[in-house]
Amino acid sequence: MINHRVCIAGLGLMGGSMAQALKGKAGRVTGVDRHAATRQQALADGVVDFAPESLAVGVSDADIVILAMPVRAILDALHELPVLIPDGCFVLDLGSTKAAINEAMSELPPGFAALGGHPMCGKETAGYRAADPTLFQGQTFILTRNERTTPEIERLALAIIDLIGAKPLFMEAQQHDRLTAAVSHLPYVLSAALMRFVSQQKDDYLWQTSASGFRDVSRLAGSDPQMLLDILLTNKTAVLEQLKGYQVELQEVIRLLAGADEKTLAAWLSEAQRRHIAYRKAKTDLE
Amino acid sequence: MINHRVCIAGLGLMGGSMAQALKGKAGRVTGVDRHAATRQQALADGVVDFAPESLAVGVSDADIVILAMPVRAILDALHELPVLIPDGCFVLDLGSTKAAINEAMSELPPGFAALGGHPMCGKETAGYRAADPTLFQGQTFILTRNERTTPEIERLALAIIDLIGAKPLFMEAQQHDRLTAAVSHLPYVLSAALMRFVSQQKDDYLWQTSASGFRDVSRLAGSDPQMLLDILLTNKTAVLEQLKGYQVELQEVIRLLAGADEKTLAAWLSEAQRRHIAYRKAKTDLE
Repeated sequence: MINHRVCIAGLGLMGGSMAQALKGKAGRVTGVDRHAATRQQALADGVVDFAPESLAVGVSDADIVILAMPVRAILDALHELPVLIPDGCFVLDLGSTKAAINEAMSELPPGFAALGGHPMCGKETAGYRAADPTLFQGQTFILTRNERTTPEIERLALAIIDLIGAKPLFMEAQQHDRLTAAVSHLPYVLSAALMRFVSQQKDDYLWQTSASGFRDVSRLAGSDPQMLLDILLTNKTAVLEQLKGYQVELQEVIRLLAGADEKTLAAWLSEAQRRHIAYRKAKTDLE
Repeated sequence: MINHRVCIAGLGLMGGSMAQALKGKAGRVTGVDRHAATRQQALADGVVDFAPESLAVGVSDADIVILAMPVRAILDALHELPVLIPDGCFVLDLGSTKAAINEAMSELPPGFAALGGHPMCGKETAGYRAADPTLFQGQTFILTRNERTTPEIERLALAIIDLIGAKPLFMEAQQHDRLTAAVSHLPYVLSAALMRFVSQQKDDYLWQTSASGFRDVSRLAGSDPQMLLDILLTNKTAVLEQLKGYQVELQEVIRLLAGADEKTLAAWLSEAQRRHIAYRKAKTDLE
């Protein structure tokens, strides 16, 4: 239980899940969202005590503001906060990239205490309807310090992470963005490209032939395009580096297959399986 | 219930699942496998009545032989069958590509009745230990006719498909191979390339940062490399065509991101989401 007045800005998948996970565990929860239907549903679900459309109204009496929008909307909100709350407050965010957000947090006036956050979980469906109070349970919640980070906001963020059942992991914002470019943003783009490309096939049996393999590899294509756009544009250099490296890997297997280089192709596939086994083992050991 | 004596050649994920799904529903089930531990386990599980190592022994008194190995092992077995069973028998297979197998089935002597089969289901883990009697339930089971297909083998195959809870779908072998190159073989290669490429990252936090997105998109990298090798080599032309088309799609999104063409990039991502929604709806409607 935290006794703070929390304002969650954005009641989509992340913010909605956070509001649901904090139900009955915070002094007062305000949820800001631009969609009237979402605000009404969150009130009806009893997960927020107050649900204004405007950020200015929502943050007016908050002790901690949790920014849960696409990255560039978070950046806009960070620029507005000093005007909306001249005395400052605690600020945490759930944005998918961290370097640009941490830079904006560092520029907040000294009355603010801010910490970057990114829960490493998600779904291929967006919006409050997809929200789930158990979304964060057992998942890594990355925290990135900036020039406005204080011991108090760290303690508060760790208390919230504990309440929602996640596992905190501190790292540098640049390290976060480099790693997520590889393990998150690259798979997003590959999945969206697969969905776009395969759906061009003109054949009535196309989807009847598809099974769980296509379902899983194409799953991320269903993600919120605005969230993805902001991720790609605010982590462009690292994502491009990953995409270009991936192109080389893909060109290599095409070359092996086109040349029917059976021995090398077999080794390429076996190595992929070995690394998958090692990755699964590493994940199991982390649990 | 079928009263036939069934011989399943290969007790891996597919053949093992078939043996488990047919438990108590066939006259007698023989399972052939080169691994002694697999044969012992299948006998201990009571899913096979007899488990020889040799195909010659296994097929000697079978009414129907179900070939459940990687594609090129199935091709080898199809070339051996006329010597092993001079009078012929019913033959069904579970191979991942169909054109080469159907050609080999068409060359069987007239005493044989053969039908190509491919259950559209799977797992990222291979072998008898991953076998599951419910694997086929509700899944599409593609059937491809060839010059040795008779009404009797069709009836028998449909009876088996009914017993294991799958849904039959007849199509041409070439159509099967073209479609699976897109919805199955392309995702396999993309997934394996992702696993290989991302695991090169040197960072202690790499796997702690990864979440369900990476897990799902990389899942197929865990597939049996021998199965994959046979798929790629027996469907090389169609797979290369898909891979090259995918490269163009990937290059396009790289171009948009590198040029920070925000409007076109947003449209590219939105279209991916729209197609994912349409695909999910099509799958739901098919269920």
